[in-house]
Amino acid sequence: MADAGESAAPLGVFDSGLGGLTVVHALLEELPAEHIIYLGDTARVPYGTRSAETVVRYARSCAKVLTDRGVKALVIACNTVSAVALDILRAELDLPIIGVVEPGAQAGAREAEARAKALGSPVKIGVLGTQGTIASGAYPRAVSQISTRLEVVGQAAPLLVPLVEEGWLEGEVPELAVRRYLEPLIGAGAGVVVLGCTHYPLLKSVIERVAAEIAGHPIPVVDSAHAASAMVVEWISQGRIAAAPRGERAASARLEVLVTDRPASFADVASRFLGERVPEVFQIDLS
Amino acid sequence: MADAGESAAPLGVFDSGLGGLTVVHALLEELPAEHIIYLGDTARVPYGTRSAETVVRYARSCAKVLTDRGVKALVIACNTVSAVALDILRAELDLPIIGVVEPGAQAGAREAEARAKALGSPVKIGVLGTQGTIASGAYPRAVSQISTRLEVVGQAAPLLVPLVEEGWLEGEVPELAVRRYLEPLIGAGAGVVVLGCTHYPLLKSVIERVAAEIAGHPIPVVDSAHAASAMVVEWISQGRIAAAPRGERAASARLEVLVTDRPASFADVASRFLGERVPEVFQIDLS
Repeated sequence: MADAGESAAPLGVFDSGLGGLTVVHALLEELPAEHIIYLGDTARVPYGTRSAETVVRYARSCAKVLTDRGVKALVIACNTVSAVALDILRAELDLPIIGVVEPGAQAGAREAEARAKALGSPVKIGVLGTQGTIASGAYPRAVSQISTRLEVVGQAAPLLVPLVEEGWLEGEVPELAVRRYLEPLIGAGAGVVVLGCTHYPLLKSVIERVAAEIAGHPIPVVDSAHAASAMVVEWISQGRIAAAPRGERAASARLEVLVTDRPASFADVASRFLGERVPEVFQIDLS
Repeated sequence: MADAGESAAPLGVFDSGLGGLTVVHALLEELPAEHIIYLGDTARVPYGTRSAETVVRYARSCAKVLTDRGVKALVIACNTVSAVALDILRAELDLPIIGVVEPGAQAGAREAEARAKALGSPVKIGVLGTQGTIASGAYPRAVSQISTRLEVVGQAAPLLVPLVEEGWLEGEVPELAVRRYLEPLIGAGAGVVVLGCTHYPLLKSVIERVAAEIAGHPIPVVDSAHAASAMVVEWISQGRIAAAPRGERAASARLEVLVTDRPASFADVASRFLGERVPEVFQIDLS
């Protein structure tokens, strides 16, 4: 593959809503010189309940907004779209595209293999996700492409997205909700937990603590938002995605956010995902 | 108005999902001789995040399925549709139509006035609902048509729908979640609580208990599903909706359920809403 060289063009990131901002947060930490455009399709969220055809149609329209703005690569920061539309977008579009399922599955598989080696016995990969992601079987499929020996158990966790969107990230309620989902997962033999939803990294410390309590020892928790960001870094270092021009850090690094509905309510939620970095927000129409 | 007489035609009830089954449950208790067809648009749930135009379009397609099946009246068992599309459907369709907001607001206003009379000071109506219902202002609007002296305070309660859908109806987590939403509502002066979402009646006993704890005395909790069912009974007794033919109770009383997606997963959730009465379920296509 030819080296992509340098480019001041932005990285494009999209999600059905605002959860994908956890991927943006990770990218900003790892790649401070990159300019990022984020699109959250807040008018049509959630995608999880739509048919595959509809999700593909929505994903094409999100990708078009970003390619029309000249992005050099696309990050699909949404598990539903990654599960259903990644291969189609890769076939249709002539730019590098990274989803969240593949890197999450790879990182989960790496951890499971390391644990299995240390323990001398196989370790299952437990995946927490929305009902839609778990029902799609995307993680077992992605893991089976890495190794046929690794087993995946899934657990739908419908309360975690509203907890994160409300900012209820500490205390009894998130702990009890997380316990409810982790007990069957760890009971089924999961020795590694993959966060298969871009909202969940905000509950990572609760999930780690409760998982360790249930198992009686620490359980690695793999965050697919960080795993996706790490894959972007890897592709840049491999020359598969063009790097930001050197020496332009201060001038080019910036974040633009596009939403399709309710830009006013964005700031509340965004600060939870991005910390203090609340960018300018623009509303666009996709319909 | 002419007396609608008797008719063996069914009552049609629809909702964006399965929450409207709480209205069906109330109707089955109050009107055991009526045949009911329920339509849950499970493929397009939730409606709360859609634009008003989209909700109206969806509501028209749901109403058409039911009128094509010859229903004698329509019950809109969905707060979002009731808020946005009730007047339009009433103008377009030539049959009696009842929503959930109007009867919920009426019952709330009655309770608030009775309490105010007993206390000798005004009592605010507190409404719990989804983000969409609270943002729509449908309850303050409906209450203002009943009395201009009554004040309404609203509280979005995004965790309650997933709690009900998971069947997590007792214990610490529902109590703490309910407390989180009732504290600001009662703190703002609410002396009556209206359940402005058809999922919430399943949490009614927790809501009553926690409200009494916070206020230091019992607070009336008005359930818009029961209020809607009571309005159907009232319209039948007034001759505005035709009654089921007398003496045909055993033969005609039955419940049919239509869903637009995932009929298999229906039974799990439906038993929570309907108790032991799980009907036959058919999948239809609205797209």
